[in-house]
Amino acid sequence: MTFEPPADDLETGTRLTPRFGSDGLVTTITVDADSGEVLMLAHMSALALHRTLKDGVATYWSRSRNELWVKGQESGHTQRVVEVRVDCDQDAVLLRVRQQGGACHAGYHSCFYRRVDGGRLVTDQKPEFDPAAVYGSTE
Amino acid sequence: MTFEPPADDLETGTRLTPRFGSDGLVTTITVDADSGEVLMLAHMSALALHRTLKDGVATYWSRSRNELWVKGQESGHTQRVVEVRVDCDQDAVLLRVRQQGGACHAGYHSCFYRRVDGGRLVTDQKPEFDPAAVYGSTE
Repeated sequence: MTFEPPADDLETGTRLTPRFGSDGLVTTITVDADSGEVLMLAHMSALALHRTLKDGVATYWSRSRNELWVKGQESGHTQRVVEVRVDCDQDAVLLRVRQQGGACHAGYHSCFYRRVDGGRLVTDQKPEFDPAAVYGSTE
Repeated sequence: MTFEPPADDLETGTRLTPRFGSDGLVTTITVDADSGEVLMLAHMSALALHRTLKDGVATYWSRSRNELWVKGQESGHTQRVVEVRVDCDQDAVLLRVRQQGGACHAGYHSCFYRRVDGGRLVTDQKPEFDPAAVYGSTE
């Protein structure tokens, strides 16, 4: 006997049914499509996901500014979407992107520029840009 | 004039000060140390992070079971930790691990075994193990 799971089965189905949290957001991991490096962790609202899929430009929900956030709109460091994936229970989204410039507002290609070493943090990446020049001085 | 940022500065400092959410958890991305592939998204309590750093075996907090979760304790699919990283504002942790078997309870190496294609989900990875054989049948 063969059994075809229903198309809307969360784990085996073909239907995209992201599970947004009580805050209306789904956690999103963004990786560099060329190197595979994890660039950042962010969140998407339903509208942000819709825009990301429709426009092919990574769009998130900014929890600090409480608004839709087209990544790179201010800095020019946009992310062209190559692929969108979801995890087994559809409460996480994975974006593979072509990153223009650096992903991190602190000036690095990836937000994960520090490793834990003997209980301390060690920065082992070099900045790609000067945040003050890109975002303006905060002084 | 040179300026040395304080060691406890969240973004530039050397002090590990993870920002746990109101639920006491920090979001964790786990990647395969060999291939760089994103394996899963999970969460860690302070104790889970402490154990992960101390024992070198990925330990999470299971939100569904509400308990400490040594990954692979039941399945044998453990994760030997190669590196721990944090992001700029320390509200996300990145683990690079040596994955024993598959990371996903659905039988795949990665939980992200489906890509979005024309609004539908397409499974483009092959299972590594039979969940029923590893976890026992749920029938």
